[in-house]
Amino acid sequence: MPDRRLDVLAIGNAIVDVIADADDDFLAAHGMHKGAMQLIDEAQAARLYQAMGPAREASGGSAANTVAGLASLGLKAGFIGQLGDDQLGSIFSHDIRSLGVEFATPPRSGIGATGSCLILVTPDAQRTMNTFLGAAQVLEPDAVDLAQVADAAILYLEGYLWDPEGPRAAMYKAMDAAREARTKVAFTLSDSFVVDRHRGDMLRLLEEGRIDILFANGVEILQLAGSDSVDEAVATVAPQVQTLVVTMSEKGALAVRRGERANVPAERIERLIDTTGAGDLFAAGFLAGEARNLGLEPSLRLGAICAAEVIQHYGARPEADLRSLAKGLFD
Amino acid sequence: MPDRRLDVLAIGNAIVDVIADADDDFLAAHGMHKGAMQLIDEAQAARLYQAMGPAREASGGSAANTVAGLASLGLKAGFIGQLGDDQLGSIFSHDIRSLGVEFATPPRSGIGATGSCLILVTPDAQRTMNTFLGAAQVLEPDAVDLAQVADAAILYLEGYLWDPEGPRAAMYKAMDAAREARTKVAFTLSDSFVVDRHRGDMLRLLEEGRIDILFANGVEILQLAGSDSVDEAVATVAPQVQTLVVTMSEKGALAVRRGERANVPAERIERLIDTTGAGDLFAAGFLAGEARNLGLEPSLRLGAICAAEVIQHYGARPEADLRSLAKGLFD
Repeated sequence: MPDRRLDVLAIGNAIVDVIADADDDFLAAHGMHKGAMQLIDEAQAARLYQAMGPAREASGGSAANTVAGLASLGLKAGFIGQLGDDQLGSIFSHDIRSLGVEFATPPRSGIGATGSCLILVTPDAQRTMNTFLGAAQVLEPDAVDLAQVADAAILYLEGYLWDPEGPRAAMYKAMDAAREARTKVAFTLSDSFVVDRHRGDMLRLLEEGRIDILFANGVEILQLAGSDSVDEAVATVAPQVQTLVVTMSEKGALAVRRGERANVPAERIERLIDTTGAGDLFAAGFLAGEARNLGLEPSLRLGAICAAEVIQHYGARPEADLRSLAKGLFD
Repeated sequence: MPDRRLDVLAIGNAIVDVIADADDDFLAAHGMHKGAMQLIDEAQAARLYQAMGPAREASGGSAANTVAGLASLGLKAGFIGQLGDDQLGSIFSHDIRSLGVEFATPPRSGIGATGSCLILVTPDAQRTMNTFLGAAQVLEPDAVDLAQVADAAILYLEGYLWDPEGPRAAMYKAMDAAREARTKVAFTLSDSFVVDRHRGDMLRLLEEGRIDILFANGVEILQLAGSDSVDEAVATVAPQVQTLVVTMSEKGALAVRRGERANVPAERIERLIDTTGAGDLFAAGFLAGEARNLGLEPSLRLGAICAAEVIQHYGARPEADLRSLAKGLFD
């Protein structure tokens, strides 16, 4: 891969997380699927927020969390995502830029509030997410700078953004530019309900060879393969993509690339607090390894280290310096 | 004390905290006094925010934190404070109301943004605060509902609010109503620089018998008494107020009431993370004890328990259920 200005350029939801504790009864009373993400509109968000306990706020968004992890690992990263012109938007911009991430998408007024994700953390540390996409869903293809895509070694796309039409068109545009520029394309399925809603599109992306690295968790890969065995699902999907990465929470993760297979256990942790961002930070570690050509197994280990950091505190962005946690493996 | 609808009604800054890690060099480069609070204007806030690392946001404000602690202990509390009509204001309102606190001050537009406090936490867990008061300083005497003051057993006032004229007038109005209704008045000096700026006023409040319970930390009591020995300062100030409470960080706290003296050590903690809110939560515990007539020593212990909870995580609001932490002492 030629030396590029950016190691990774991501397109994703620009969102601020609103994190509160809740119990299982609260999830049941509000008809939520534990561990999943559901899209809600502004009125639903207002009702749910009213019912929630006191919260803490922090920048979020799946691919944005990944990019924050990459920056913490010392990689050069860029981000594309749409904010509203408001205080939450300022928080998001500040946080991502203060990490040294290139973020040039201008906030827009008149398109509604900056997106937010109401996250309920249950005593088992699982997170259940209710996303009001707001301005994030108004991302237009114009926001994709073709030169920036060409300047990146890897383009990373967030499956959550597949729902709204504008961002989907923006991602198609970016994938075309990536192919042209020999930028690798990485894609995360994000959530089993996303796969459920867009399985045809996802399979077509693979068939058309548009994706070089596919990230899925155990449930998502089953959903995509239409199987009830992870081994079988991996065997079905792996031949359709250059690199397949499957994360399985406390069971670790595996990767398959052209017949080569690697797996790692989950890192030991002291105390599990909030699993929000686990998959996002795993992707950060793996992509960092890929960008530095470490090979499958070290890249998986880097992913596991980054995921372990983020689940030991509230919020989906790393708090420790990931570069020093990854010492030895990296740099 | 007759049975009142509210145990404590507080008047304070309605503020959202923006919390980031920083090192001593950062504080020095920005001319900050470690551990203190300085007032900054909107332009200074914007410059400082730009220089800060990624942050987390949570409702704050000194007396508001105290009220949150009281609610977590199961007491009936009310709050008066001014918000702007914006997203940070909505966060503050949500958080305080979701705790069951009576908060009826309407947000106002056209008075600037909701106040915020840029808090830098150094590796020694000390917090250094830079407050942009914003809408909080526009609190008017009209915001004080005399019937609400009369319905409270204790009125609690935040020294930080003594700087701007409107809130100061609002607090005088509330103190007059409290005297009329035989509501006890508690006052926290908040910060040594506040005492420095308003020492004459503070001494006059004591002289006029307007304050029943005075909260100070070690530095503030020295400043108020114009002394360089805490023992001497306590001996000077104690005769001027019914109840004097002095907190001394890891050295514990003491209280003096009409010759009776009590002291407690600091509670043991597992890990010190962020001292923001320590004094505020100490006040919550002590006031809860006072409201339930527990006596000086148990009230101090309750204060120490609440302070110990809040310094073991980021942010100035309790995360654990304080009522269950205080079991045995209380309820």
